[in-house]
Amino acid sequence: MKRIKIGMFGFGRTGRLVAAEFIKDDKFHLEWVVRKHGSDNHKYASRLLGYEHDYGMIFSIEEINDSLFKENPVDIIVDFSDSSGVQYYKDAAEAGIKIISAISRYEPEDQALLYSLADKVAVLHSPNITLGINILLVASQIIQKIAPHADIEIVEEHFKGKKEVSGTAMKIANFLGLDEKEHINSIRVGGIVGHHEVIFGMPHQTIRLTHDSISRAAFGQGAIFAAMFLKDQPKGIYSMENIVSEMFSKHRPVY
Amino acid sequence: MKRIKIGMFGFGRTGRLVAAEFIKDDKFHLEWVVRKHGSDNHKYASRLLGYEHDYGMIFSIEEINDSLFKENPVDIIVDFSDSSGVQYYKDAAEAGIKIISAISRYEPEDQALLYSLADKVAVLHSPNITLGINILLVASQIIQKIAPHADIEIVEEHFKGKKEVSGTAMKIANFLGLDEKEHINSIRVGGIVGHHEVIFGMPHQTIRLTHDSISRAAFGQGAIFAAMFLKDQPKGIYSMENIVSEMFSKHRPVY
Amino acid sequence: MKRIKIGMFGFGRTGRLVAAEFIKDDKFHLEWVVRKHGSDNHKYASRLLGYEHDYGMIFSIEEINDSLFKENPVDIIVDFSDSSGVQYYKDAAEAGIKIISAISRYEPEDQALLYSLADKVAVLHSPNITLGINILLVASQIIQKIAPHADIEIVEEHFKGKKEVSGTAMKIANFLGLDEKEHINSIRVGGIVGHHEVIFGMPHQTIRLTHDSISRAAFGQGAIFAAMFLKDQPKGIYSMENIVSEMFSKHRPVY
Amino acid sequence: MKRIKIGMFGFGRTGRLVAAEFIKDDKFHLEWVVRKHGSDNHKYASRLLGYEHDYGMIFSIEEINDSLFKENPVDIIVDFSDSSGVQYYKDAAEAGIKIISAISRYEPEDQALLYSLADKVAVLHSPNITLGINILLVASQIIQKIAPHADIEIVEEHFKGKKEVSGTAMKIANFLGLDEKEHINSIRVGGIVGHHEVIFGMPHQTIRLTHDSISRAAFGQGAIFAAMFLKDQPKGIYSMENIVSEMFSKHRPVY
Repeated sequence: MKRIKIGMFGFGRTGRLVAAEFIKDDKFHLEWVVRKHGSDNHKYASRLLGYEHDYGMIFSIEEINDSLFKENPVDIIVDFSDSSGVQYYKDAAEAGIKIISAISRYEPEDQALLYSLADKVAVLHSPNITLGINILLVASQIIQKIAPHADIEIVEEHFKGKKEVSGTAMKIANFLGLDEKEHINSIRVGGIVGHHEVIFGMPHQTIRLTHDSISRAAFGQGAIFAAMFLKDQPKGIYSMENIVSEMFSKHRPVY
Repeated sequence: MKRIKIGMFGFGRTGRLVAAEFIKDDKFHLEWVVRKHGSDNHKYASRLLGYEHDYGMIFSIEEINDSLFKENPVDIIVDFSDSSGVQYYKDAAEAGIKIISAISRYEPEDQALLYSLADKVAVLHSPNITLGINILLVASQIIQKIAPHADIEIVEEHFKGKKEVSGTAMKIANFLGLDEKEHINSIRVGGIVGHHEVIFGMPHQTIRLTHDSISRAAFGQGAIFAAMFLKDQPKGIYSMENIVSEMFSKHRPVY
Repeated sequence: MKRIKIGMFGFGRTGRLVAAEFIKDDKFHLEWVVRKHGSDNHKYASRLLGYEHDYGMIFSIEEINDSLFKENPVDIIVDFSDSSGVQYYKDAAEAGIKIISAISRYEPEDQALLYSLADKVAVLHSPNITLGINILLVASQIIQKIAPHADIEIVEEHFKGKKEVSGTAMKIANFLGLDEKEHINSIRVGGIVGHHEVIFGMPHQTIRLTHDSISRAAFGQGAIFAAMFLKDQPKGIYSMENIVSEMFSKHRPVY
Repeated sequence: MKRIKIGMFGFGRTGRLVAAEFIKDDKFHLEWVVRKHGSDNHKYASRLLGYEHDYGMIFSIEEINDSLFKENPVDIIVDFSDSSGVQYYKDAAEAGIKIISAISRYEPEDQALLYSLADKVAVLHSPNITLGINILLVASQIIQKIAPHADIEIVEEHFKGKKEVSGTAMKIANFLGLDEKEHINSIRVGGIVGHHEVIFGMPHQTIRLTHDSISRAAFGQGAIFAAMFLKDQPKGIYSMENIVSEMFSKHRPVY
């Protein structure tokens, strides 16, 4: 099978871990990585990550122009940088390159631009792109429908330094129609990487769906999952929760 | 709305709790309860459970004959007794009465008899009829399909006196294609009512589905859920896991 | 061994379960039970609880006078009624009867009266008299001292109908010097009997101490534990946390 | 305060993380690190770990002789290498250097040699030197004494690749007098770093002590804790569980 060619935006703390997952997976070829600042320019991401081979040449963002996408064609762009990356997608979409964006917050006009490209190529946008969190999200919504009388509470635990409420917990609350202030319980202690729990309380039984992050490399696995799905999709806008939701329906057991 | 008339088989430890749930729910009318031994004959289940009204006259099993079902017609029979109850269903099915059986183990010929009645009326058979456990079962099978590379382990915790491995855990293992001996971890301590946990381990994240029983009255709520479903169904054989599985598909969210 | 004679105040939801624990334990003899209202007067608590023998004659509170304690002498009074019981202790203390009070809230003058009796007999006062909760409390305080840099959060989960924050969680917070409003996380769902969790978060590891109540009969076991301890103690004021704390020191392992 | 000078043996996966903890803590000065193979000889551990200063010069094990300890004196040796390190301790002990060994398995004669040095200096030996695990161990033993009728089970969860049963779980089982085969439940899934749980089951309540490792840097914090304790101790043999056990007694609350 031909390897899927990946171009990445972002090589920060999460970006590096995501790049490493693509490098380790032989269904993919990491073609290049675009970084904001010019350090390590034209070195290889793989070398910087401790590998003895050359994958993912690093380009500074100033170097991007039409020709990057033509001279270094890829199948899919994976963006773990920031909201500014979207400015460069247009040329990519023109070149038929699909887009996976894991950016949390876009300015409205940037988001509009991103979604407009779905007229040309398949575009997936999911701030929390891990498989597990999206399974939690979809399963929670279904269980709420099956057991509408259950009381629901969300618990999220993170490292002490995390100031704001977990965006993932807020998304789950919103999708379940729960008031964020009342139903999200945020625990901040020590170095917990990330724990999300949805509790369904009924009079005589309790169901809990729990997700624990071990490392941010889970984002890389999520991006791989998204890329494997997106490679065969026609133009349009996609999200991890929608993919996972469709799979819930497709894979439901018949006894 | 007209109340759904229920006839029960079994008034043991679980049967009493189930009867109480039907008595408390005003969508139902508990018409009678059949007990094996003749004690408390023709008293009311409701009185024995501490209520000040008359619901659920108790009949000894020796009194059952064609006329019981005709003189005391019900919409649905709910059986929490033992495998012998099935002998009396035939007359019930002839009279158009639907059947919910929560019996764990049938002799092959008894089970064949039960299933043969599905040609006449709607028959539901589910040894573990709680809603939560069936949600766990269906969700686990779907997640296994979505994340086929996840390692799966089952943990079940029960009171010290429970000798055998949890039948529910064995069912989950079977449905997931896991070797029972290798992948079920049974903890026996103190007075734990019932705890089942399915762990999905991936390299960078872990998902856990957990079910805790607080009281065996959960079986009553499961029977109510089953009865509400069954009342509108044509003849045929049903199971809780199938009902729940269909609901997973029907209620999947679209974003 | 001579059985320890117990007199109880209170035969409500918890009182009945506590009485049952004393009845089942052959180190004790439940001599009598004092109830507020006169129903079931002079019947036996054991009969009301379904036993076929006569233990714990029920007295109405109006019948209490000096002679009750003289004619029906006991070794220890166990009080699961309400704050009013304390009015009758004085005669008991004069008669050398030890006192175990599990009352949550006393009026200041009632509490003063209770504590003043410690000049005559051994008096133990513990609103949450379960062994497990007191183990949690003491262990938490010690761990806080051993790992002073750990962040600490308390989680308590109870049934939906419980309006106020768990008194036990508040006590733990106070003993740990934590602001109750900031560090207690209260979850209210379904029918959870009682779950308390103290989380110690450090940068690279997390410790959790968890207590789950299965039934309020745990209070009975706590009262038995307290009675076994108190029977050999001289006059003075005692508490479960102090007993447990002393045991932590006495039983510390030496390697 | 004068910094405590540390010499380390071992710079493997765990050793590097431990070295980093000592480098980051300004109560310590990492003087040197001894590695088995000669790579990176005379470079600085701090540089290899990404710091911009010079701490912890790396020596090959072949270079060790009397003069290393004299020319590069340290207060404490911390050993995360393997059983062979003990051969070099004798000279260190002669020079008054205290020893902390985190080696899991020694040959009997090596262990005898290590313990013989306790006649000259303070020697601490603890295979699992994390604070949390030792708290779990000591607390479990105490609770077992306080609640002797509780059923006890141990659960340990680790990454799929871990073949053997957790040594820590075996130690806990041994100290509690529990049969390892019967009472340790080992879960192997995905990438779980390390989870240990001791469950105390009583008829009406359950207590759980849980320890979760987030990163192996917890060993570094344990070594720091041990070093802070050992610096003021006279000659003799010490262990983390003994230090923690003494602290349980010293810090027990009085109400």
